[in-house]
Amino acid sequence: MIYFDNAATTAMTTEVLKSYNDVVTRVIGNPSSLHNLGTVAGRLLNASRRQISDLLNVSPDEIFFTSGGSESDNWIIKGTAFEKQAFGKHLIISSVEHPAIKNSAEWLRDQGFKVDYAPVDKNGFVLVDELEKLICEDTILVSVMAVNNEVGAIQPLKEIATLLGNFPKISFHVDAVQAIGKIATKDFLLPRVDFASFSAHKFHGPRGVGFNYIKSGKRLTPLIHGGGQESGKRSTTENLPGIVATAKALRISLEGFEEKHAHVAEMKKVIYNELKEHNNVLVFSGVDNYAANILTWGIKGIRGEVTVHAFEDHEIYISTTSACASRKNSAAGTLMAMKVDPKLATSAVRISLDYTNTMTEVELFLTVFRQVLLKLG
Amino acid sequence: MIYFDNAATTAMTTEVLKSYNDVVTRVIGNPSSLHNLGTVAGRLLNASRRQISDLLNVSPDEIFFTSGGSESDNWIIKGTAFEKQAFGKHLIISSVEHPAIKNSAEWLRDQGFKVDYAPVDKNGFVLVDELEKLICEDTILVSVMAVNNEVGAIQPLKEIATLLGNFPKISFHVDAVQAIGKIATKDFLLPRVDFASFSAHKFHGPRGVGFNYIKSGKRLTPLIHGGGQESGKRSTTENLPGIVATAKALRISLEGFEEKHAHVAEMKKVIYNELKEHNNVLVFSGVDNYAANILTWGIKGIRGEVTVHAFEDHEIYISTTSACASRKNSAAGTLMAMKVDPKLATSAVRISLDYTNTMTEVELFLTVFRQVLLKLG
Repeated sequence: MIYFDNAATTAMTTEVLKSYNDVVTRVIGNPSSLHNLGTVAGRLLNASRRQISDLLNVSPDEIFFTSGGSESDNWIIKGTAFEKQAFGKHLIISSVEHPAIKNSAEWLRDQGFKVDYAPVDKNGFVLVDELEKLICEDTILVSVMAVNNEVGAIQPLKEIATLLGNFPKISFHVDAVQAIGKIATKDFLLPRVDFASFSAHKFHGPRGVGFNYIKSGKRLTPLIHGGGQESGKRSTTENLPGIVATAKALRISLEGFEEKHAHVAEMKKVIYNELKEHNNVLVFSGVDNYAANILTWGIKGIRGEVTVHAFEDHEIYISTTSACASRKNSAAGTLMAMKVDPKLATSAVRISLDYTNTMTEVELFLTVFRQVLLKLG
Repeated sequence: MIYFDNAATTAMTTEVLKSYNDVVTRVIGNPSSLHNLGTVAGRLLNASRRQISDLLNVSPDEIFFTSGGSESDNWIIKGTAFEKQAFGKHLIISSVEHPAIKNSAEWLRDQGFKVDYAPVDKNGFVLVDELEKLICEDTILVSVMAVNNEVGAIQPLKEIATLLGNFPKISFHVDAVQAIGKIATKDFLLPRVDFASFSAHKFHGPRGVGFNYIKSGKRLTPLIHGGGQESGKRSTTENLPGIVATAKALRISLEGFEEKHAHVAEMKKVIYNELKEHNNVLVFSGVDNYAANILTWGIKGIRGEVTVHAFEDHEIYISTTSACASRKNSAAGTLMAMKVDPKLATSAVRISLDYTNTMTEVELFLTVFRQVLLKLG
């Protein structure tokens, strides 16, 4: 089996699963309990928080655990809207955001907020000049993802941060779900960023765990009220085994980042170069300014679904753009925003690599690719 | 070690952890992915959903997974409020609800909703006549927990259901977090109930997993928008290992319910009878109409915290009422609602038993209890 669908989800590694098991079997307390089983659990929770904050070069009190990327995104979008509604009701998000952002914003629109979409160019990059034109007195939030999940475009966050330097009252959120471990942390966790969201299962951590970076002093209305955990910002009995496993997974994921990145980039380059040689293959992702792990392409006139299944017959797993959109049978939202001809866009499939993939897998993939192309192309 | 704090959290059993590990190592797909790894994951997800719905005697399309009891509660309270705001903005909750309910309702109050609290009598039971008086044209939701987490009172849900039979437009939510496996399912999942919320780690399932029963045809605005999972009602990549483990834990928990219940009730009775013999011991929980696993009491004039630590010295773990409130050093909200003298209420500690506890543990506990009472009482 060759698994090239790592942007959809990654498998928990043996070491990470071992951490999960260790906590389940050894630490039974609820961190909120007053007795020492609770104290031990609370200490482990804080150690994990510190481990993550150290890896991101932020403060432990800026990390808040959630149930995953979707909750993280919903919390920031809705939490900012409710927190700041007295000051303004206008949000700007890019036109290529994940549905967790887009649909949160659309829901807020139903509640009386105003939402504008910053367009992207034909390569998938947010047009910062156009974003600037959308800013008004009433704007309370700008939300732009670091790495697009459907084509891998790395968004011009530094330019946006510079722009927003002139608008200190606007909160700046970066959806970092597809960025962490894929591009350097310092390239998306910029000083101007107020909020950033993360999901553990994208970097070999457990499903059902995510976290938010919330810059010290920034307020956010809770999405989940209750017993007052996470400094009163996100209530629920903490998923301690999942959190400890997440910290471990993040450490492993960021270890030797340069080498891992170079390895993934090299694999992408080999595939990219081959794809580019065929006239009946469309390549939607680029190399420069795109994440090294994501490569979106298609066979002209062939629906993405057909291509996915053709590879599946050889036990090679790729996807039709994002997992979240794939069962809906619609063209990728990002390609639509890039104004790709819908007929061409429906051919799109996404390869998403991981540092655990090998060049041998790439070569096997290319052998199969040539067969599939002969058959379908 | 004797663990009598099972209402705070329970340990995952070996079998449940094995299920979790099996899924992690064998099923790597994202249920939303189009390829067959996704299909396999999707089938397993639906099998777990069916297993849970069969155990609860409801339909699989009435079960929606969440990240735990707090999210489940928040979703129902806020989701009902937003869904039905055009028809009314008045909510009624009991005065002894969990903070996940209470603080959700209080937040809605800030957003322009109106919230009334149905009072309880001195024993902790909701006064249904008083609840009835609070119902008005504008009422959209009544939320009453099945089993109170702080004293174990089983709320008069049948009477409330009968009352609400006359008000078909009012949604009826039951927080079943402390009820499932503790009282018979048919006693809280009544036909009139529209929504019920559950948390896996209270019945030896994993932390970070919960689910909601949402009666077929009942609408609820999502709390987490996004990729459209859970029939568009709750988006996020599904925590498949956690969900499969939850289904397994629920099955085990409900297996032989009568025997387990009788065993727990017998243990409680032995402790209860001993506590009742001492003039300097206050007993806040009763036996009839109280859950068999919860027993809240205190040593007159001794702060609950002191009693907890005295038992902890003997490796016996009990708690100061709910875990969620315990680190805040305040008297239990339920005892306040029962109008217990605050001076007496601060002495409260909670024993919460589990079917895995033994009569030997109870005897050891009582030996230590007599020592503690001599020292502190």
